[in-house]
Amino acid sequence: MAQDKGVTPRSEDYSQWYRDVIARGDLVDDAPVRGCKVLKPHGYAIWEAIQRGLDERFKATGHVNAYFPLLIPMSFLSREAEHVEGFAKECALVTHHRLRSKEGGGVEPDPASKLEEPLVIRPTSETMIWHMYGRWIDSWRDLPILVNQWANVMRWEMKTRPFLRTSEFLWQEGHTAHATREEAEEETLKMLDVYASFAEEVLAIPVVKGRKSARERFAGAVETYTIEALMQDGWALQSGTSHFLGQNFAKAFDVTFQNVDGEREHVWATSWGVSTRLVGALVMTHSDDEGLVLPPAVAPIQVVIVPVYKAKDRDEVMAAVDGLHATLKPHVRVRVDDRDNLRVGAKFFEWEQKGVPLRLEVGPRDVAKGQAFAKRRTGGDKFAIAFDDALATVQQVLDEMQGDMLQRALDHRESHTFTAESREDFVKGLEERPGFYRVAWGGDDADEDRVKEETKATIRCFPQEQDSVEGLTCPLTGKPAREWALFARAY
Amino acid sequence: MAQDKGVTPRSEDYSQWYRDVIARGDLVDDAPVRGCKVLKPHGYAIWEAIQRGLDERFKATGHVNAYFPLLIPMSFLSREAEHVEGFAKECALVTHHRLRSKEGGGVEPDPASKLEEPLVIRPTSETMIWHMYGRWIDSWRDLPILVNQWANVMRWEMKTRPFLRTSEFLWQEGHTAHATREEAEEETLKMLDVYASFAEEVLAIPVVKGRKSARERFAGAVETYTIEALMQDGWALQSGTSHFLGQNFAKAFDVTFQNVDGEREHVWATSWGVSTRLVGALVMTHSDDEGLVLPPAVAPIQVVIVPVYKAKDRDEVMAAVDGLHATLKPHVRVRVDDRDNLRVGAKFFEWEQKGVPLRLEVGPRDVAKGQAFAKRRTGGDKFAIAFDDALATVQQVLDEMQGDMLQRALDHRESHTFTAESREDFVKGLEERPGFYRVAWGGDDADEDRVKEETKATIRCFPQEQDSVEGLTCPLTGKPAREWALFARAY
Repeated sequence: MAQDKGVTPRSEDYSQWYRDVIARGDLVDDAPVRGCKVLKPHGYAIWEAIQRGLDERFKATGHVNAYFPLLIPMSFLSREAEHVEGFAKECALVTHHRLRSKEGGGVEPDPASKLEEPLVIRPTSETMIWHMYGRWIDSWRDLPILVNQWANVMRWEMKTRPFLRTSEFLWQEGHTAHATREEAEEETLKMLDVYASFAEEVLAIPVVKGRKSARERFAGAVETYTIEALMQDGWALQSGTSHFLGQNFAKAFDVTFQNVDGEREHVWATSWGVSTRLVGALVMTHSDDEGLVLPPAVAPIQVVIVPVYKAKDRDEVMAAVDGLHATLKPHVRVRVDDRDNLRVGAKFFEWEQKGVPLRLEVGPRDVAKGQAFAKRRTGGDKFAIAFDDALATVQQVLDEMQGDMLQRALDHRESHTFTAESREDFVKGLEERPGFYRVAWGGDDADEDRVKEETKATIRCFPQEQDSVEGLTCPLTGKPAREWALFARAY
Repeated sequence: MAQDKGVTPRSEDYSQWYRDVIARGDLVDDAPVRGCKVLKPHGYAIWEAIQRGLDERFKATGHVNAYFPLLIPMSFLSREAEHVEGFAKECALVTHHRLRSKEGGGVEPDPASKLEEPLVIRPTSETMIWHMYGRWIDSWRDLPILVNQWANVMRWEMKTRPFLRTSEFLWQEGHTAHATREEAEEETLKMLDVYASFAEEVLAIPVVKGRKSARERFAGAVETYTIEALMQDGWALQSGTSHFLGQNFAKAFDVTFQNVDGEREHVWATSWGVSTRLVGALVMTHSDDEGLVLPPAVAPIQVVIVPVYKAKDRDEVMAAVDGLHATLKPHVRVRVDDRDNLRVGAKFFEWEQKGVPLRLEVGPRDVAKGQAFAKRRTGGDKFAIAFDDALATVQQVLDEMQGDMLQRALDHRESHTFTAESREDFVKGLEERPGFYRVAWGGDDADEDRVKEETKATIRCFPQEQDSVEGLTCPLTGKPAREWALFARAY
């Protein structure tokens, strides 16, 4: 029966595997609204761990949180010319503010409650926030403003995939205001570094930092920077972005400040965000054909203790289990699974599918020996952990697992990063060995569009770490190379 | 000049005082959407402290967090008959999902994107959550479900007041599902206790726990319990509610479970919530004519250190300030105000208006004596704190302030709680000495409506702690008294 609830192997159907891992891991459920998902407790707990970790890092870099309204006047969206092109196409619109009873039962919008100007559910908050900054900024003394918001946003999507693309999602959006271009550019890159180090240190997801091409830039940004991760199937996932907005929004919302010399200047801006998409990145980076695998640093439950006994041994075993639990609890996210309406095998199966990094089994023979039997979610033989030394050993094992998972993901990326020597090599490679393709790029926007149309691959970024392209010819366009670009097919 | 930015005295105009305290405290700003406010960083930080404290208490009582969609199909609202009456009148309705460019510039809703069924922005999530629980609950083994959600909700309001009544607000809503009536009733009262102890221990707001009258009950609940606080003007503020929903929503959404005897039964439910309204309660309980006053347990900044020096003494003073800061920082939320573009008096004024509980001044003479000068936000003389003993002393002072603030609020409530001896006494009392009025109540719903119409006072609750009413006659109706009720005018 347990087998019936298994996961489709990755090799068979990657997309179905992804959905199975999420379903068996009990992370989300379908909502009765198109394109929306419910984040179930185990899925939300992963997001909470991400929030905690990022929020600490934001505050350590001088940021504070605030909250801006969900609804934005429709006219705000068209204030910044490029912004409206990017976001107007997929907005939920509020047009009425009251229901009335309908003849024959039920309710309907009350026509008398029609709004003079429709309101948009925020797809992102630059317009609302720059309207407010216009009220808050007058002098160089008011700068910088370093604000972040944790919020829900909405972008109407027809084709959805849990965590990766849903109509409503949870995210954070940082919006900062600066007196100089240099300071705003520095902030943009600082937050990119915060994202990158968080991804690697906590999520065990190695990322490439780089600049987006004009085609992939945020609507309204001067430059967009990104962290790009490579999934197990060789497709890329954009995992966080940081935008240098120049003075575009300050000009659109007429936000100026008086500088130290008494002159008025437009304010410089950045914005940066990551979302519940990171949970999707976690799933696709670490999970296996048994189900979810979570790095210890972000696992809601790091250790599960499963007592294994016959009735006569119960008291003795549970005393040992309670002792072990008490030892670990102050320092480790640990749970005892003492449900007595479930067989031990079913418990093992459930916690494996939920991605708990370490399982400790305690039976009467283990108690006699003063030890528990440990099993890593990432594989390997079972091994004994002495009760006397349990905390130090468990912490060491979790640390090792965290490091091993990052290394494994790094190895995977290295072995799936290729340099395109020729157009044929690139086209064939994308089909046969999907991955990151380094291209000494010399094309323009139109070339980029053609490559996308023909190969489904896009420029994920121009990596920050660049080798020289001197004397190289772009293998995709035949033009002189200007810069190394990283291409991939992407989610 | 500082005087110009002061706060209207409470005695002069209580309502304007409230708005001034919030404005000078830099807690909120008006948003460009009717009835909505921006929570500025200092205001949001108070909400974050409330969230942290409550979330810990929810988890300690076995609850987990989850996230459900913002948008609810319109038809869901009319599934529970009373619920729709309570919430349909004030809903934001999403009817379209795309904008298009308008001739002559700007954008407009694309008529082709009209939704088949309008969606409601959640005013509360019982309907969405009970729809989902219908998918998750099948057997007694699936119960209880103890879920909480932190979210934004929207109830269209025409007359708004910051924190107390706004169209969009932030809150938490717990939604639990149980196998038995007893267990659900127990949960309802347990969460009322969690709210009450949090209000008293962290917010220093004494509350009366009690049951709502039928008139004031949550739409769809069998019983609503409340914590009621008394503001400085003698008006009551409902500060949190916990609802026993019976089987109403389980029946409306057909959610049944198989009990241990193999029979199908409808599930029992509770829901409970508090919101950013608690920040309003904080303001109106503790603040004074100088501005915001915050209890240390919930103050985003507990201690501010202000160096006071002439240029020649700078290094010496800042060395001492940095040392003091380093000593306090691991245990106290402390900030050094070393801005050099602001006079010392303006700094004192700003931190007072922002409600920071304790100010420490350090000048060259203090450094020579190895001490700082301390000033409590709640008044009293300045006093010296020796650097050697700073942490212990500061913690002791903050603890004392926390206790004193609760005691002061308790004293205020005691001195503003009256027993109505006669109808005349009650009516006159409400005008002359607003407060809680204990009434040996014997009326029915119609009597309650009449009292409200004539006096603007409502039954805030039937307090949990009840004296006997044996032999008493209701002073407002002349009927035999059934139960003590607490009346007040309320926000």
